[in-house]
Amino acid sequence: MRRLAFLVMSMAVGMSIVSAVAAADPLPAWRDGPAKQAIVRFVEEVTQKGGTAFIPPAERIAVFDNDGTLWVEQPMYVQLAFALDRIKELAPAHPEWKDKQPFKAAIEGDLKTVAAGGEHALLELLMATHAGMTTDEFVKTVEDWLSKAKHPRFNRPYTDLVYQPMLELLTYLRANGFKTFIVSGGGIEFMRPWTEKIYGIPPEQVIGSSIKTKYEVRDSKPVIVRLPEIDFIDDKDGKPVGIHKFIGRRPIMAFGNSDGDFQMLEWTTSSPGSRFGLIVHHTDAVREYAYDRESSVGRFDKALEEAKAKDWTVVDMKKDWRRVFPFEK
Amino acid sequence: MRRLAFLVMSMAVGMSIVSAVAAADPLPAWRDGPAKQAIVRFVEEVTQKGGTAFIPPAERIAVFDNDGTLWVEQPMYVQLAFALDRIKELAPAHPEWKDKQPFKAAIEGDLKTVAAGGEHALLELLMATHAGMTTDEFVKTVEDWLSKAKHPRFNRPYTDLVYQPMLELLTYLRANGFKTFIVSGGGIEFMRPWTEKIYGIPPEQVIGSSIKTKYEVRDSKPVIVRLPEIDFIDDKDGKPVGIHKFIGRRPIMAFGNSDGDFQMLEWTTSSPGSRFGLIVHHTDAVREYAYDRESSVGRFDKALEEAKAKDWTVVDMKKDWRRVFPFEK
Repeated sequence: MRRLAFLVMSMAVGMSIVSAVAAADPLPAWRDGPAKQAIVRFVEEVTQKGGTAFIPPAERIAVFDNDGTLWVEQPMYVQLAFALDRIKELAPAHPEWKDKQPFKAAIEGDLKTVAAGGEHALLELLMATHAGMTTDEFVKTVEDWLSKAKHPRFNRPYTDLVYQPMLELLTYLRANGFKTFIVSGGGIEFMRPWTEKIYGIPPEQVIGSSIKTKYEVRDSKPVIVRLPEIDFIDDKDGKPVGIHKFIGRRPIMAFGNSDGDFQMLEWTTSSPGSRFGLIVHHTDAVREYAYDRESSVGRFDKALEEAKAKDWTVVDMKKDWRRVFPFEK
Repeated sequence: MRRLAFLVMSMAVGMSIVSAVAAADPLPAWRDGPAKQAIVRFVEEVTQKGGTAFIPPAERIAVFDNDGTLWVEQPMYVQLAFALDRIKELAPAHPEWKDKQPFKAAIEGDLKTVAAGGEHALLELLMATHAGMTTDEFVKTVEDWLSKAKHPRFNRPYTDLVYQPMLELLTYLRANGFKTFIVSGGGIEFMRPWTEKIYGIPPEQVIGSSIKTKYEVRDSKPVIVRLPEIDFIDDKDGKPVGIHKFIGRRPIMAFGNSDGDFQMLEWTTSSPGSRFGLIVHHTDAVREYAYDRESSVGRFDKALEEAKAKDWTVVDMKKDWRRVFPFEK
């Protein structure tokens, strides 16, 4: 009998430790301002059984933009840095690039000329670096690059430059029965190799832009080959289309940081029932970057204009975030 | 103290009830033959912690064809029955169809002429019935039709004509940490409205063929509109492509019933590690249908030929399934 009593008591002590941890602030990197309060209020409302705003777990879909919402997108999209490095690496095998734009400019690090070539130039660089190999080979290239490349300002691997408050938010939502998805304009296969480890988001919950692929059997070994042709652009009005295609139902929470996320937030927050939209405003030039209406990367203009009318929460990074990166003290 | 002791004992009793239930046969509609044994052996191997064949839950992806694998596909694909019924319903608003093939034949129920028109005729019927409305409107049409339509032989709603052994298999796999996906040549939006209720598979785990869509704001209400243009055909070598696009990793189990599933099984079972492929052979003309090499619907020829060499399990419906449908005694 004594042993049983001891067991029961240990269990009770164990339980109260668990409760204490659960009761601790799940969002410590967020200062106690209106943004944090809005998030917590919404989550408590939709998860309260019997409450008027209750939403069953299966419908608790939360979608997150990636670049500028979950990790740094300045001074250029990480995937563009990858493409430029790849061009330099592949250049010896492509002597014709020395005299051909935009390759020449990319090799020389002349970003101004690359940018002057507009979308067409970017597409050429993308196809030269993202197509023509099997999907397994591409994953290996991405993993190798991420293990070596460093951000020019922070001198750290790019996967260190994720936002601590958003990591906490992802964990908090999942603990409350949400399924978290990435819905990014970036390449789906550029993200999938690392999102599970870094964000806890498995590949099947990552939506992004893609190129076409083809199934082939090579020497009796099946492979999927990446083709130099755009399949889907998951940006602006492509985001609701991508959400519908991959998820097949409307999210109840959406998180973004730029005009590219406008339609995703509009689509999410205009359906009936409790809905939540949030935009990260980059206001912190000291700890991260400050940019909005005039930025060529992550322009935030229309969405900032309409956030108030649409009742979206705008995060002021400088004020609302106690910590920006996990490596900060 | 007594109360505590009682509590502990009740818990112990509760636990043994749970164990007893868990120990009961999870696949009672399967006869104890080689197919059932192969399934159970595989699942036990890959879920045994510390075992050499152990696969972590995140990688336990199982993919299922739908038509002929999870529900009846004879005498015609359910989605084709839907399209033909829709043509008849829409005919009064389309007087021009009276003299135009394949619409004339569809209205008259002349399937031979429809079939003689080949793929092009089917595509015309599909676009006329599946495009031009919002996604919400289409879902409603599917739900309305499914609530009324009856299978010509069994005189029951189509959603009754799902295979009991496969329902048990889906539940068994999920109980063992698997994530179950549908990978069907059928229309993704024709399946998503009902797969969660019938199979326990949520919309975000349904992959299928699709048409293009477009995001629009109509009278300040955002909608997604279905366009008369094929986006993706999730059949044959499209299945591995669809799996890669939507899931982003290779499954470890694949279930099909026809040559349309060949590449999906090939892709699944040729990756390194423990892998499992299974094909349902329709051998039971009494309880369901018997067809394979000569059938225009669900032709099963090449896959039957190669199943042995590739070590795929072939289910003999007549021998291996004790019950076919849930409504059987």
